[in-house]
Amino acid sequence: MNITDYMNNLGQAARSASRVLAVATTAQKNKALLAIADALVAKTDFLVAENEKDLIAGKVNGLDDAMLDRLRLTPAGVVSIATGVRQVAALPDPIGEIKDMAYRPSGIQLGKMRVPLGVVGIIYESRPNVTADAAALCLKSGNATILRGGSEAIHSNRAIAQCIIDGLRSTDLPTTAVQVVETTDRDAVGRLIAMPEFVDVIVPRGGKSLIARISEGARVPVIKHLDGICHSYVDATADLALSWRVCDNAKTHRYGVCNAMETLLVDAAIASAFLPKMADIYRAKGVELRGCPRTCAISPMLAASEEDWSTEYLAPILAIKIVDGMDAAIEHINTYGSHHTDAIMTQDYAKARQFLAQVDSSSVMVNASTRFADGFEYGLGAEIGISTDKFHARGPVGLEGLTSQKYIVFGQGQIRQ
Amino acid sequence: MNITDYMNNLGQAARSASRVLAVATTAQKNKALLAIADALVAKTDFLVAENEKDLIAGKVNGLDDAMLDRLRLTPAGVVSIATGVRQVAALPDPIGEIKDMAYRPSGIQLGKMRVPLGVVGIIYESRPNVTADAAALCLKSGNATILRGGSEAIHSNRAIAQCIIDGLRSTDLPTTAVQVVETTDRDAVGRLIAMPEFVDVIVPRGGKSLIARISEGARVPVIKHLDGICHSYVDATADLALSWRVCDNAKTHRYGVCNAMETLLVDAAIASAFLPKMADIYRAKGVELRGCPRTCAISPMLAASEEDWSTEYLAPILAIKIVDGMDAAIEHINTYGSHHTDAIMTQDYAKARQFLAQVDSSSVMVNASTRFADGFEYGLGAEIGISTDKFHARGPVGLEGLTSQKYIVFGQGQIRQ
Repeated sequence: MNITDYMNNLGQAARSASRVLAVATTAQKNKALLAIADALVAKTDFLVAENEKDLIAGKVNGLDDAMLDRLRLTPAGVVSIATGVRQVAALPDPIGEIKDMAYRPSGIQLGKMRVPLGVVGIIYESRPNVTADAAALCLKSGNATILRGGSEAIHSNRAIAQCIIDGLRSTDLPTTAVQVVETTDRDAVGRLIAMPEFVDVIVPRGGKSLIARISEGARVPVIKHLDGICHSYVDATADLALSWRVCDNAKTHRYGVCNAMETLLVDAAIASAFLPKMADIYRAKGVELRGCPRTCAISPMLAASEEDWSTEYLAPILAIKIVDGMDAAIEHINTYGSHHTDAIMTQDYAKARQFLAQVDSSSVMVNASTRFADGFEYGLGAEIGISTDKFHARGPVGLEGLTSQKYIVFGQGQIRQ
Repeated sequence: MNITDYMNNLGQAARSASRVLAVATTAQKNKALLAIADALVAKTDFLVAENEKDLIAGKVNGLDDAMLDRLRLTPAGVVSIATGVRQVAALPDPIGEIKDMAYRPSGIQLGKMRVPLGVVGIIYESRPNVTADAAALCLKSGNATILRGGSEAIHSNRAIAQCIIDGLRSTDLPTTAVQVVETTDRDAVGRLIAMPEFVDVIVPRGGKSLIARISEGARVPVIKHLDGICHSYVDATADLALSWRVCDNAKTHRYGVCNAMETLLVDAAIASAFLPKMADIYRAKGVELRGCPRTCAISPMLAASEEDWSTEYLAPILAIKIVDGMDAAIEHINTYGSHHTDAIMTQDYAKARQFLAQVDSSSVMVNASTRFADGFEYGLGAEIGISTDKFHARGPVGLEGLTSQKYIVFGQGQIRQ
């Protein structure tokens, strides 16, 4: 198979399908989504059997337990995927929404209409559920999708794609609205990210090295998420009980997620009141603590190295630093953080405002757990990813991040003078 | 001079300045803009004298009259530049604007705050007024700017930059908020567009070849504008008098601009009633007409070639095609157009809605001249360019296109369950 020809054909088909999808009605799109959900549930046995092939191959190829776990598709998992697709059907359709219509002095009436981006390429590792999640979000937002999953999930992905096509077939939308790259050849990825004539945006979902590789080679925009080095800063005026509870949750609710706190910053003025009990809470949960010298003086623990301040542990490890006031905390966050999600614990009105204004992150919070930075918690219904870029979409990206706007003008014969 | 070191230094200084600008108050930014305007007017003689050096060099180097004209800075031109800067000062400050605050079921209150992009690189040709325009827009939107003008305007650009720095010096904002690349070495451009650590977005302003070259080599997002192949479509139900007036304006108001109509599409049902008088209007103004065979049969003119449908003339030339109904018109526009600005003349409600929904352009209009697609006419106050991309900003780009948003969360101790 000639990979370039193969990918060009996929691209051309996606571009054609995107023109149809862009003007599909809400009813058409929802009907297709519900049909896809039904097809997934109806084919549960087939999906689980195909997934079993990937699991067996994975064991032969020495995938570790965590990877096998991400790869595994159970009957309950299929139901959960189908439920996710139905939830996307229930979301409001962003396409065609018109905002800010207003008259201009010339007499024209100007507004903005929301439109799809066109064709979205999704590149992801192991988790086969991404196939259906991503396809559903793209379909609802009027975009055609080309999906490229990891080779370790190829049977699962093909099977899910089959269900999606079955679902589409029962509607009048093109079955090429969602296409799965059927080859595991790596050159296919190289081509997918470098054909702006067919693909408008790439969304990589996976580990840092995958995302870095794709960003490096992409010739189209990439909606991406690199690190999640999130901070909680406990201000001198913080409510202690609230801070213990929130900082506990931010670190220990889940360890391997991008919105988990990785560094705790504490104002020197409150450190001796706050830190000992906080450290006890973490230790009781088996969290390894690494502190700056002043932290270690209050509560003996491992010494943090310079590297700790810029490390995303994704593990039961927490770096702790005492800072002299909020300016130092903000400086630390903007320097060492990853512009993902950072929170302040404070009872001070002016400090809350300043922290919100000056911390340069996609989510900035007051008196809340960083764990809330999430598409579901933010009411986006679902998310295609979390963007740590500032361009186009920032933070959790839902349907709106997969859209653009166009200006529309209503006139009555106006001409430019 | 080592270009890489030089550009890295500029980049580092811009990145530092951007942190200060991001949290500058509206009053600080406006004060700086007014000081810059005053400095420009106060130094009119200096600016005109420096510009004279570029004009003399330009003549020696064989620049044509049109280029010399774009390059020329008169005392009146300086006043107009200063007025533009004062108008930007008068615009509302987009930074810090908070929208869509709402409570989520978890109890957190979520909204979006508008923030600057960071550092904007502007690459432009000849017109020295871009130096001040672009710097003003970037400053107001809290971004640091690195400006790289054409070598043919180097003295003018340096002189304007001097006024900008004088203006900044009278405030407490860093003078590195606006920097001009002082070398004409082409490698400086290559470096400017490939240092994501210092520059967040590039805005090229100039001819197609400049923009294509920059898009090709850029390692950061580019807000760009390629072609302006704009259409007016005269539907079967169009008001004839309105259509003659609007289509005349769209073509003949100005020829060398991106929002001028380049192709006129006419429904076959109205062609014989509409075309003869329309052709007379154009001929009276010296517009060369190139028609499809059916057009030529109604009003004899040059035969259009296939190439004409995808040509941006920027000149008193117009291609005319008769189509069978609106679907054919939309198909033609989406195929041959440049997704810039397209208009329909119609009295039919359903057709107006369908045209707005289906034409895939950054501005879509009903019964209005394509010439309205412009930052000033749209009320953006000024524009840094017109984007024909769908990603991030689309259509005329003003202050908002130079910004991003971050999520902000107000909590009262909420934790994720």
